[in-house]
Amino acid sequence: MKMVHPCPRTVGDGDAALYLSYTGDRRPLCWSAEFARALGFEREWLPDLLVFHVIFGKTVADISQNAVANLGYADVRFLAPVYPGTTLRAESEVIGLRETSSGKTGIVYVKTSGIDQNRREVLRFNRWVLVEKSSDAAAGDAVVPELPTQVAPAELAPPPFKLDRFSDVAWATGGARLFEDYQKGDRIVHPTGMTIDDADHTGATRLYQNTARVHFDARAMAESKVGKRLVYGGHVISVAHALSYSGLENVLCMAAWNGGNHVNPTVGGDTLYAYTDVVDAAPIKGRKDIGALRLRLVAVKNVDPNREPVETQSAEGAYDPHVVLDLDYWGIIPRKR
Amino acid sequence: MKMVHPCPRTVGDGDAALYLSYTGDRRPLCWSAEFARALGFEREWLPDLLVFHVIFGKTVADISQNAVANLGYADVRFLAPVYPGTTLRAESEVIGLRETSSGKTGIVYVKTSGIDQNRREVLRFNRWVLVEKSSDAAAGDAVVPELPTQVAPAELAPPPFKLDRFSDVAWATGGARLFEDYQKGDRIVHPTGMTIDDADHTGATRLYQNTARVHFDARAMAESKVGKRLVYGGHVISVAHALSYSGLENVLCMAAWNGGNHVNPTVGGDTLYAYTDVVDAAPIKGRKDIGALRLRLVAVKNVDPNREPVETQSAEGAYDPHVVLDLDYWGIIPRKR
Amino acid sequence: MKMVHPCPRTVGDGDAALYLSYTGDRRPLCWSAEFARALGFEREWLPDLLVFHVIFGKTVADISQNAVANLGYADVRFLAPVYPGTTLRAESEVIGLRETSSGKTGIVYVKTSGIDQNRREVLRFNRWVLVEKSSDAAAGDAVVPELPTQVAPAELAPPPFKLDRFSDVAWATGGARLFEDYQKGDRIVHPTGMTIDDADHTGATRLYQNTARVHFDARAMAESKVGKRLVYGGHVISVAHALSYSGLENVLCMAAWNGGNHVNPTVGGDTLYAYTDVVDAAPIKGRKDIGALRLRLVAVKNVDPNREPVETQSAEGAYDPHVVLDLDYWGIIPRKR
Repeated sequence: MKMVHPCPRTVGDGDAALYLSYTGDRRPLCWSAEFARALGFEREWLPDLLVFHVIFGKTVADISQNAVANLGYADVRFLAPVYPGTTLRAESEVIGLRETSSGKTGIVYVKTSGIDQNRREVLRFNRWVLVEKSSDAAAGDAVVPELPTQVAPAELAPPPFKLDRFSDVAWATGGARLFEDYQKGDRIVHPTGMTIDDADHTGATRLYQNTARVHFDARAMAESKVGKRLVYGGHVISVAHALSYSGLENVLCMAAWNGGNHVNPTVGGDTLYAYTDVVDAAPIKGRKDIGALRLRLVAVKNVDPNREPVETQSAEGAYDPHVVLDLDYWGIIPRKR
Repeated sequence: MKMVHPCPRTVGDGDAALYLSYTGDRRPLCWSAEFARALGFEREWLPDLLVFHVIFGKTVADISQNAVANLGYADVRFLAPVYPGTTLRAESEVIGLRETSSGKTGIVYVKTSGIDQNRREVLRFNRWVLVEKSSDAAAGDAVVPELPTQVAPAELAPPPFKLDRFSDVAWATGGARLFEDYQKGDRIVHPTGMTIDDADHTGATRLYQNTARVHFDARAMAESKVGKRLVYGGHVISVAHALSYSGLENVLCMAAWNGGNHVNPTVGGDTLYAYTDVVDAAPIKGRKDIGALRLRLVAVKNVDPNREPVETQSAEGAYDPHVVLDLDYWGIIPRKR
Repeated sequence: MKMVHPCPRTVGDGDAALYLSYTGDRRPLCWSAEFARALGFEREWLPDLLVFHVIFGKTVADISQNAVANLGYADVRFLAPVYPGTTLRAESEVIGLRETSSGKTGIVYVKTSGIDQNRREVLRFNRWVLVEKSSDAAAGDAVVPELPTQVAPAELAPPPFKLDRFSDVAWATGGARLFEDYQKGDRIVHPTGMTIDDADHTGATRLYQNTARVHFDARAMAESKVGKRLVYGGHVISVAHALSYSGLENVLCMAAWNGGNHVNPTVGGDTLYAYTDVVDAAPIKGRKDIGALRLRLVAVKNVDPNREPVETQSAEGAYDPHVVLDLDYWGIIPRKR
């Protein structure tokens, strides 16, 4: 079952400025035309995650408008820089389906592509959601797709960075640490926290034309278990990613996500903090100037990990109740010369 | 009495992105340059209602800064697509004046035009407002203008849509229903609701440079009957219009408003829902490819008409206390081929 | 000690639109390309204060991330119009340092420049902040820079306004008063107030990439004396400046600040009002068409000076507890012909 989602979007400077106002992102590749040009690009990029949210938003009406929960992501690829002025469309394919043990809900697996006006694929991701099952729907045969638990470093195809002039513009990131300065097992606790107001997350989520009612209808949500409008999980990713700039200043872009989970809900009034664990470091085939760091970005709510350490998961794998996001991604970072 | 209102405005991409973040609008004609070009236009349009709000905002300081209430609109014409980068100015003429029965207030009737940098009129509307009367003002002769209760279909002059390629891009709207699929008497209850936060409506209203104090000064409004900052009525129109996309996906633009009323106040924290009644359907002279639907867009607060039907008006014409907006407009929609 | 601050920023239309949505600014020089061109410029300017906030924001991580307080500004020069699309960077120099009497804190004096992509200096300012002193830091010799208490009118170098066509476009400002219509000693109480919501000031402050935690972390601030997130002082300046449009419509731009102080904190929920005292009026060397007004812009919270006069300072110089901002600047205004 394939579908082209409606509502294509030309994403421009204004969207980028709004993204900044919602997140406080600081990566110069997205905010300085000069910096982007010094690295060989036409101009500044749209933030990777803005592109993700716009594409994700288009899929909601067809996939997850009434989903009970977003369960996870796998094999997410950021395939090309996207510049302001690009028109994005989303196409999806249902790649799997299974009933849960209760028989009342099902899990739907979907593969989505973000495509620009020249039919170039700029983003590809898999996600799975928990949905209500119609009472009269037959169970059918379960089809569970094989999704990789990581994107192999050999498959990373980073954008055509030209780093000959990087030393001239390295001041712009404000960070001195490069590929070789991070080690497996490092934890970087990002120094600041961000309180989410309802007008922030609802504004961001409207900008992405995401129509899931759980984010917008406070009256209906007052009757839900959480009792309040839920923050779109992607906004949590964006805020955590923006907080994570301090300590990861030279991670130029996301190349891929190995996986990701929204572990607990976030609502207006929660304060988010973040830390990043360095999971792996890998060279990139054919590139002596950049490498890839496998990073686990964890967002927690209402506890400051700078003051009070958080154990992400227990030995049994149970998440700390403060953890709201567990995102495992590959970031691209310059190497020492 | 004619006046040129100050503060002309160049309205661009950034304003459009903000409009989207405040409303969640999804009409591809406004958000996809590719879609707009496929329909014969230079690029995506600024939202009709954004243009309306910018022009309306300019009139406030001269007309309704201290108005007691906006009573209604008549004969509102959207005369031409407006592209990002256009500089808009507003000109008005007082066309009528009468004292109310109390003798303490008066009704002022105003005709306003929105004009671009090439002196092309892009918008024209009539509105009337209730204002305090200076204690020493003579009553004068009442002048009540004759305003039409509807814009006749023969007067609709829709923009130069080219629909030869519409079938190629119809996927972009996400809706299958065309002119012939709507019937007089249909009611479309739009599925989702939107809670308004104070930062949303005040931000939108500042963007429109509307300076009416009732929207901005919470201290002063705490002493008013409503007790809170009032949501600018135009923001209510925009939110209701954005909600109404679901079910009216192929209504490409507003051609005219027959009339409109802000029936009850809306404040921060209210949740808006909307339904649309199909009042009429009319062909457009000289066009076999498009038709006009006369639509009555009703916004209600704090009751979900998907769960609990609302009767807009009683037999005597009294509005249900949940109704906040009653807007009667002509929308342009493709016909079947 | 000199430093180049990281995170250069290309500031565009989207940023300007956001600035408008946060402040309600109405100066046509910033919002109408036609008006700006009529006055001899390429296009509309970015708001002076938006440029200030972007440059200020870049200095925070290096200067005032953990400052106890921003004490003041001196000799602030707006050196050139900045157009959308400009890439701005910030450079600073520490120009002074002294311990306070307690020995536990120190005052750091910093001179900052805002520089565009062609290395043109567009803004220069001095500020001083109160910071915690490391317990083991030696006192050192105090170095207190000599900072002027005013920018002499002879030093004002206003942008190349061409006012031959001003009378054609003067309608755009909405104000009739020119240089000669203001007198030393005049007080203009601006008519409207603006309530600040948390989502406004945090959004604006993120847009400026200002990372000071006092603005963002409500949990941490709940333990502070104020108990809430502090509004970035620059947002207070912008809101007060926007409110001050009514009564100062022909003040085209800020040329310089003589000084400025954030006198009391502002938090979400406060309502701001403003008045302006005319301190001086000076001709500008070589210009018969424009003059300079020295204006003292005072912002107060939670008292409306239109109803209840506020005495800014007592005879002893103590500020009224409602005063939050005292800003002394030179504005440029056309002269009568």
